[in-house]
Amino acid sequence: MPRAPLPPELVEFLKEPHAAVIATVRSDGAPYTAATWYDWDDGHLLVNMDFERLRLSHMRRDPRVAVTVLDIEDWYHAVTVLGRVVAFRDDEAFADIDRLSERYRGGPYWNRERKRVTALIAPERWHEHS
Amino acid sequence: MPRAPLPPELVEFLKEPHAAVIATVRSDGAPYTAATWYDWDDGHLLVNMDFERLRLSHMRRDPRVAVTVLDIEDWYHAVTVLGRVVAFRDDEAFADIDRLSERYRGGPYWNRERKRVTALIAPERWHEHS
Repeated sequence: MPRAPLPPELVEFLKEPHAAVIATVRSDGAPYTAATWYDWDDGHLLVNMDFERLRLSHMRRDPRVAVTVLDIEDWYHAVTVLGRVVAFRDDEAFADIDRLSERYRGGPYWNRERKRVTALIAPERWHEHS
Repeated sequence: MPRAPLPPELVEFLKEPHAAVIATVRSDGAPYTAATWYDWDDGHLLVNMDFERLRLSHMRRDPRVAVTVLDIEDWYHAVTVLGRVVAFRDDEAFADIDRLSERYRGGPYWNRERKRVTALIAPERWHEHS
């Protein structure tokens, strides 16, 4: 599998708001997956979660993740990024989730009650399938 | 997270040919993901791979997998199945990959040269997001 950095055309693809699935590892070593919004953020994949999400507790224990991004028009064309969470931050003003909600839904996020956390993922390897 | 069996309405959803991403665990314990075709097969998720795919070697070492199935019309609606590969079989006559190719593309699989392997996944837990 090729190592990061990602080729420019893959970065361009990731900048578009595609469907994505993120995998984390549970405490027993088994994989866990969930659909996720993401954005490309200056060399990192940015994701954002409710503070009680299982995958957030997984990432805090083991920062290694995998994200597969699907071209929704032809989803068998997919780009996968294997990487590592290098930073967490509390999304106190909902700035990051609003950014994702604007990107995917065209408006601010609907839930202003639940705390949210942002994770920044540094790509380490990648693969493309089409 | 609820345990299997899956509710009937989720089984109905899985019987439709949705986009999916499968996660396996690498030898170093990190997660790995890839887009995949699948079908529901009498209580199991059926997937099929080129015999040299990385994820097949992962599964043979650690049969625990996670599969997130996305509603392509509204992909933030997703069903995730956590489970275990309980059987592998060589797809010598391309029957399984043809079944998947018919389901997703409406015709037999195009590559008759490369050996393929089918894995049957028994669901253990699941979660739904919408």
